[in-house]
Amino acid sequence: MSDPLRLGIAGLGTVGAGVVKIVRQKAALLEARSGRPIAVSAVSARNRDKDRGVPLGSYAWEDDPVSLAARDDVDVFVELVGGSDGPAKASVEAALKAGKDVVTANKALLAHHGQALAELAEANDCVLRFEAAVAGGIPVIKALTEGLAANEITRVMGVMNGTCNYILTRMENGGLTYAEAFAEADALGYLEADPELDVGGIDAGHKLALLSSIAYGTQVDFDNVELEGIGRIRIEDIRQACDMGYKIKLLGVCRLSGRGLEQSMSPCLVPATSPLGQLDGGTNMVVIEGDQVGQIVMRGAGAGEGPTASAVMGDVMDIARGTRVTTFGAPASKLVKAQHSRAATPAPYYLRMALADKPGALAKVASALGEAGVSIHRMRQYDHVNEAAPVLIVTHKTTRAALDVALAAFPATGVVVGEPVALRIEAV
Amino acid sequence: MSDPLRLGIAGLGTVGAGVVKIVRQKAALLEARSGRPIAVSAVSARNRDKDRGVPLGSYAWEDDPVSLAARDDVDVFVELVGGSDGPAKASVEAALKAGKDVVTANKALLAHHGQALAELAEANDCVLRFEAAVAGGIPVIKALTEGLAANEITRVMGVMNGTCNYILTRMENGGLTYAEAFAEADALGYLEADPELDVGGIDAGHKLALLSSIAYGTQVDFDNVELEGIGRIRIEDIRQACDMGYKIKLLGVCRLSGRGLEQSMSPCLVPATSPLGQLDGGTNMVVIEGDQVGQIVMRGAGAGEGPTASAVMGDVMDIARGTRVTTFGAPASKLVKAQHSRAATPAPYYLRMALADKPGALAKVASALGEAGVSIHRMRQYDHVNEAAPVLIVTHKTTRAALDVALAAFPATGVVVGEPVALRIEAV
Repeated sequence: MSDPLRLGIAGLGTVGAGVVKIVRQKAALLEARSGRPIAVSAVSARNRDKDRGVPLGSYAWEDDPVSLAARDDVDVFVELVGGSDGPAKASVEAALKAGKDVVTANKALLAHHGQALAELAEANDCVLRFEAAVAGGIPVIKALTEGLAANEITRVMGVMNGTCNYILTRMENGGLTYAEAFAEADALGYLEADPELDVGGIDAGHKLALLSSIAYGTQVDFDNVELEGIGRIRIEDIRQACDMGYKIKLLGVCRLSGRGLEQSMSPCLVPATSPLGQLDGGTNMVVIEGDQVGQIVMRGAGAGEGPTASAVMGDVMDIARGTRVTTFGAPASKLVKAQHSRAATPAPYYLRMALADKPGALAKVASALGEAGVSIHRMRQYDHVNEAAPVLIVTHKTTRAALDVALAAFPATGVVVGEPVALRIEAV
Repeated sequence: MSDPLRLGIAGLGTVGAGVVKIVRQKAALLEARSGRPIAVSAVSARNRDKDRGVPLGSYAWEDDPVSLAARDDVDVFVELVGGSDGPAKASVEAALKAGKDVVTANKALLAHHGQALAELAEANDCVLRFEAAVAGGIPVIKALTEGLAANEITRVMGVMNGTCNYILTRMENGGLTYAEAFAEADALGYLEADPELDVGGIDAGHKLALLSSIAYGTQVDFDNVELEGIGRIRIEDIRQACDMGYKIKLLGVCRLSGRGLEQSMSPCLVPATSPLGQLDGGTNMVVIEGDQVGQIVMRGAGAGEGPTASAVMGDVMDIARGTRVTTFGAPASKLVKAQHSRAATPAPYYLRMALADKPGALAKVASALGEAGVSIHRMRQYDHVNEAAPVLIVTHKTTRAALDVALAAFPATGVVVGEPVALRIEAV
């Protein structure tokens, strides 16, 4: 019998406790499938006395995750502390420097420090795995890094924040306003302590940055993810989209073209009958398109104890088997700094704005669009509400740059009330 | 720089040629991602002179795949010959005995000889991988064997024969009869030389048997897959299913319970709004349910040059990286012979039959069902056609065994014309 693979688990929240439970309750299964027993040596968390629903007394306890990371009886450091810096970063660095393999669920850490940590891992002949950081239980990192490795990836898309999808679904199915749906999600405990991480698209943007590094062999570049949250979506937008055969999703898209790497996490219209359009509620979906494989769609729970612990343990079991994969699917030294390109791929856009009740208002807007080279596919004007008329426009394919020229010209028209909403229509 | 990993490719049909193209055209990508150059040393096929759209002159040629398998300049034997026995089996055995790793797309071979080949691979310290054998480009073997390895799998379902799904979709959307849709699929070249492999569910049944071995740690047991083809589905069945909110799919289902291992590949009703219900055309879908992860859905192309070659190369690149995974996810010696259980899990069933124009006919059928312990949820009788009245029944949850007792009693009623169609309604 092989020696057990010994885990040190930092962070005993829901996921950490879930990992301990799996190790304790499924010992025979884990050993049969990975070829080696898997055991916990030591753990670390802030509160030692809290009942976590699983016995912890047989494990050594470290108050400081950095001390845990360097213990001689730890082969794999499992980082479930969270946060892009502080103890999470310090302990992962300590583990790698001590020659330990690392498994983490920390998207923020990798989105901000992925390149440096990948280099550190490789310098120390360690692996650094993070399946649980992206789309919870869906084994999408493995699919992209390994299963689809023979493909040039042409596009990756994802709905990767269940809370946002829940809010948008409730607005649509329940007829709730954004504020009502947000309050409902909050009451259900779906929101992060800082809700902007969810509804501002930051959490999902972290995930997209990791996927795009693997897809394109580029250094993780979260700062160049175009982020736009769902806070300006109104129920009218959802209804209008529906009328045109679309759904609105907080959609991550990355693609690499001659213009550079495009990464965006923003509300988009997608065809209602597409797998992304049919994704209701808190579920996640990632769509990977490759030159050989065509389109692969993966769907599952994006959060929660079981799904996240499943992903963590998948990585641990790979390490137990002896599988060694580079952090982002290619040696860190070969990852290139991508040239950033802001949504340069032409797409149709959906625009909603309010026009003042003045003669020629619509003509002025149409003219501003035309001068920017944006042509109109459809336009509708509705009855006045508070002396402003809601106007909806669907453009023909245009670049975001051209659209921005038009949007910048709107204030000077003197007829556009408030700020227009502009949403890309993504062909999927 | 590492030594190249050298492939010997047996079988130069569409997929074989696709693999050669990827190796030739993506050398830098493959090396960056797998850490090692990948090259072709030698090939084998029946016809040496055929133009396969890719230069082959630089590779050694073996007329016999068995000779190819044993060549000193081959590290990985790629079997794309096909067929459950004959040269495919002989060459894979020869490769393993010679200590070569094997990658194959051959579901029939593994469905019939998987256990023996897995034992042979392990006895020779070789890996035997077969991602391309199941659901084409979808990396589902990897997901089940590795990514979801910490889960006890509760159910695996799949639509894994694109031709059948195409036929059923055309019947539904195009209003074609089964014969018309079959003829259309044939004209498009979608059918195997022996169409029964497709429409009889055999090809998809092979795939299911492989998935269930991995899911449950059991020896591949294709002989105990309950097979039923789509040839008896009528357009009325599709329309009735649609009226009740269902679609008919050739669905593979495996689950392990206290009663044993259930494996079936048969036309089933699934909710129209579920991902399986929404799967139109030639696309494949596999649904994996685990105790930790919940439900994971994977969708993509199930056949074709690019998708299949993508899967073959994913396995090759794993081997290049040094990844060693057991054939069915656990050591072959630990795979158990499953006790077989025929659809013992209760489910509602859809029944269609024709009743003779005699007084009390419906009562006799209802009585036969009742005596078998099958209770009726809904029943509809339609206008007589050729002196027989079509009758549709949806039962409450029942076992297939109880239903079979009722079906066996139907002839004695003297009122059931022809053979009834019975389709399980699978909750998904």
